[in-house]
Amino acid sequence: MKESSAFLTTLAAIVGASNVLTDPALVAAYLVEPRGLFHGRALAVARPGSTAEVAAVVATCAKAGVAIVPQGGDTGLVGGQVPDASGQQLIVSLRRLNRIREVDVEAEAMIVEAGVTLAEAQAAATAVDRLFPLSLASEGSCTIGGNLSTNAGGVAVLAYGNARELALGVEVVLADGRIANLLSKLRKDNTGYDLKDLFIGAEGTLGIITAASLKLYPAPRARSTAFVGLADPERALALLRMARRRFGQAVTSFELMPRIGLEFVFAYAPGSRDPLAKPHPWYTLMELSSQDEAGLDEPLTALLGEALDQGTIADAALAATIQQRGAFWRLREDMSDAQKPQGGSIKHDVSVPLGAVPAFLSEASAAVAAFMPGARVVAFGHLGDGNIHFNVSQPPGADKQAYLEQWGAMNAVVHGVVARHSGSISAEHGIGALKRELLKQVKDPVALDVMRALKRALDPAGLLNPGKVL
Amino acid sequence: MKESSAFLTTLAAIVGASNVLTDPALVAAYLVEPRGLFHGRALAVARPGSTAEVAAVVATCAKAGVAIVPQGGDTGLVGGQVPDASGQQLIVSLRRLNRIREVDVEAEAMIVEAGVTLAEAQAAATAVDRLFPLSLASEGSCTIGGNLSTNAGGVAVLAYGNARELALGVEVVLADGRIANLLSKLRKDNTGYDLKDLFIGAEGTLGIITAASLKLYPAPRARSTAFVGLADPERALALLRMARRRFGQAVTSFELMPRIGLEFVFAYAPGSRDPLAKPHPWYTLMELSSQDEAGLDEPLTALLGEALDQGTIADAALAATIQQRGAFWRLREDMSDAQKPQGGSIKHDVSVPLGAVPAFLSEASAAVAAFMPGARVVAFGHLGDGNIHFNVSQPPGADKQAYLEQWGAMNAVVHGVVARHSGSISAEHGIGALKRELLKQVKDPVALDVMRALKRALDPAGLLNPGKVL
Repeated sequence: MKESSAFLTTLAAIVGASNVLTDPALVAAYLVEPRGLFHGRALAVARPGSTAEVAAVVATCAKAGVAIVPQGGDTGLVGGQVPDASGQQLIVSLRRLNRIREVDVEAEAMIVEAGVTLAEAQAAATAVDRLFPLSLASEGSCTIGGNLSTNAGGVAVLAYGNARELALGVEVVLADGRIANLLSKLRKDNTGYDLKDLFIGAEGTLGIITAASLKLYPAPRARSTAFVGLADPERALALLRMARRRFGQAVTSFELMPRIGLEFVFAYAPGSRDPLAKPHPWYTLMELSSQDEAGLDEPLTALLGEALDQGTIADAALAATIQQRGAFWRLREDMSDAQKPQGGSIKHDVSVPLGAVPAFLSEASAAVAAFMPGARVVAFGHLGDGNIHFNVSQPPGADKQAYLEQWGAMNAVVHGVVARHSGSISAEHGIGALKRELLKQVKDPVALDVMRALKRALDPAGLLNPGKVL
Repeated sequence: MKESSAFLTTLAAIVGASNVLTDPALVAAYLVEPRGLFHGRALAVARPGSTAEVAAVVATCAKAGVAIVPQGGDTGLVGGQVPDASGQQLIVSLRRLNRIREVDVEAEAMIVEAGVTLAEAQAAATAVDRLFPLSLASEGSCTIGGNLSTNAGGVAVLAYGNARELALGVEVVLADGRIANLLSKLRKDNTGYDLKDLFIGAEGTLGIITAASLKLYPAPRARSTAFVGLADPERALALLRMARRRFGQAVTSFELMPRIGLEFVFAYAPGSRDPLAKPHPWYTLMELSSQDEAGLDEPLTALLGEALDQGTIADAALAATIQQRGAFWRLREDMSDAQKPQGGSIKHDVSVPLGAVPAFLSEASAAVAAFMPGARVVAFGHLGDGNIHFNVSQPPGADKQAYLEQWGAMNAVVHGVVARHSGSISAEHGIGALKRELLKQVKDPVALDVMRALKRALDPAGLLNPGKVL
C-alpha cells in the first residue's frame, strides 16, 4: 500500500494530481465497455497531457513493475481497453492528447494526437477541403489512437483501406518509456523495417501510440447513393462486380443488409421507413464518390437499370437529396443498436474471401439453425470487404442470460464455417480479451510464435496491456 | 573444406545436384548487380524449387552456421542481393519458385511464388481482365519476392500504393527453417500483429518470402496520357493539385522530368523525339485511368486548357494513339539508361513531403553546383509521391573514376538538403549494402534500436542477409 502510494505520488508529479484518478466514482466510467461483457478494476487512471508525460508515466510503471492498459475513447468491442480484475493495472487514458498538431495541405497529410476523436480528425480535413476517409459508427467518441491500435475498418475500406492504410506514420512510447518518432509525411520511405505497421493493430501491447501522421484525400464533389433490394447475397456480389468494373475505386461503400435487420430498425428507430415499395430478402447500400460536380447519378441509374433487366436486382432507390441519403445510411447505422431490444445478441466480426461470402452466409445460417432453432441471424456489414457482422439474436421469448451463456458454443458453430472458407474470426474489431483464447486455436502456430517473439523483444516485462491479444 | 563439402552434399540432396552451383562460370552472374557497384564471392548458389526446399536449405544453413543471401531477379539497386567478399555466404536464388499458384477472380486476389517475374504477375492478372498495378522499369526480370522484400515503388504508386499495399499476405521461411503461412485472400483481418508488413521491405534480413497473395484491381477501360511542358516544379505541383482535385484517384501516374534528362534521352535513344514544339525547362507525364470506355480525354483536355490559360503550364500534348502513349512513356523509361553514355552518375533515391519538392530541387541543385561546378543534375521521378531520383552526372570530360570517388561526399551534400525537409534517403530502392552506414546517421536512434531488437528476435544467429539494412 505504501509502495502503491509512492507510485501514485510519482504519477501525480508527472501529470498533475487532478489527472490521477483513484476515486471509484471517477474511475468507474473507465472500467466498462460498450457491450458490457468486460468489467475490471484498476489501481488508478492516469491522464497524461503530452507525449512526454506518457513517456514519463510508462517509465515510472516500468520501474515499479506496474502493468498498463492504454485507453482511448473506450468504444472497442473486444475488451482491449478494460483492465483485468486484479485492481493492480494502471489505465492510461490518452484522451487529453487531443491536439491537431499540424494540417499540411501541400503534403496531403495531418499530424494529430492519439486522443483526437475520429470526428475531430474528419472535421480538420474538411476544414481544408480534404477528406480523411475513415468512417465508422462510433466516430463521435472513438479516438485516432484507438482507431490505429485496433486497425479500425468501417464503411469506406473498399476504396480507401483500413486505418493502417490511412496512416503515414506514428509516434510511439515504448515499454521502457522511450519515444520512437516514426511520424512522417512521406508517401514513400524504404529506410528499414516497417515499424509503423507493427504498432498499428497491436492493441497497445507493443507500445502506446501517442500521435499519428494521417493521409488527406481530395474531398469528393458529389456522391451517388443507392438503396437496392435483391433476392440473395450472390446477386449482391454480382452487383458489386458490375459496379467495380464500371466505376472502379469510385465505389466507396458497398454494404449488405438482411430484411430482418431492416425490420429490427423499423421497430427500433421512430420515423424510419422502407425506401422500397415491397420487402426484399436482402439489401445493399452502395455509394459512389466523384470528383466531378456532375456526379455519377446518371451512369449509376443506367447500371441499376441494366442490373434490373438482368434480374440481378429487384428494385432500387437513388437518394435524390442529402436528407434521403442520410435516411438510407441511418438504416445501416442503426442496425447494431436495433438488435438490443430484441434480447441477447451473440456477435461475430468475420471475413472471408469476397467470392465466398454467399456460401459462408448460407452455411453459417444453416449451422446456427441446427444448433439453436429459433435463433435469428442478423448478418450485415461491409460486403465489399468480405466482412460480415454475423450477429445472432436470441429466439423470441428466450431467457437472455441463458442465451448469452451459449456465446462460446455459438462462436464455435459460426467460426467453424469461417475456418472452412479460410476466413478471419476478427475482421475489424481486433482480439482484445474477448478473442484471445480463440486466436490460439485459429492462428498459424508459427505465426503465433513470431508474435510471441516480437512481444518478448519489445515488452520483455510484459507490462503493456497484458492479457490482450496474446 | 571437408565441412563445406558435406554441407554442399546436403544441399544437393535437398535441391538436386544440378541446382547447387559452384562452378565460377555459373556462379558469376549471381555475384554482380545492375550498377556494378557491388561484387562479392559466394560459397555456392542454391536454387530450391519449392517452399519446402527453401525451408530445408535454410534449416541446413542454420545448423551449419552458414549465412544466406536471398536473390530474386537480381535487379536491386542497393546491393541487397549480392554476397560479401568472404566467399562464405550462400546465395539462395528464388527464381525456380515460379508458379502462379492460384488466380481467384472472385476474391480479387492471386497467389504467386517469389520467383514469378513482375511482368508474369501482371500478365496473369491481364489474362482474367484484371490489373496488378505494380509497374517499374525492370518488370521483365525483377521478381515478386524481390519486389516485396524491397517494397518496390514505380509509376503507379500515386493511385495504388507501394508493393506493400498490393500484398494481402506472404509465405515466409524463417531463420530456423520453419514456414510461416501468412498467405491470405482477406481484405480485412485483425487477428494479431501485422507480420506481413514486417517481412515486406526487410530485404531478406528477417525471413525469406517464398510466395505472396496479391490484390487484383478492375482493369481500366481507357487511359489518357499527357506530356506537358512547364516552367518549374512549383507549376508541376500546381498541376498535380488541379488534377487530383478534379480526378482524384483516377490520376494514376504523375512523373516529373527535366529538360536535360530529355536531351540525354534524345542522344541515347534513336528515333526518340520531343512531343512538344519548343523546349521547356521541365516536363510532366501524367496519366489518368478510367473504368469508362469513353475515357477522360475530354475533361483532361479541358483541365490542361485551364492550366494553360492560368499560366500553370506552357504546352501539352495528349496521346492520340497507343503508339504515341508508348513513345511518351519511353522518354520517361529511358531516362535512367540515357545517363550511362554521359559518364559517371551519382544516384540519390530520395523523397520529401509533396509540397517540399520544389524547394528541395532548387536547394539541392544549388548545393551540388557549389560542391562541384559543372556537375549535371538530372532530377526526375515520381512527383506524385514526392519521390525524386536526384541523379548527378559528371561534368563533361571529367574522369569517371575520380568522379565516382566523390559518391559519399556528393551524397552528403544532397542528403543534407533532404534532411532539412524531413525527407527519406531511400524512397523506393531500400538500404541494402549501399546505404547501411547512411541509415545509422539519419534514422531515429530509438527506431534503429527497435529494428535491432526485431532482428535479434527473428534471426538471433544473424544468418539472414547479414550486412544488409542493419
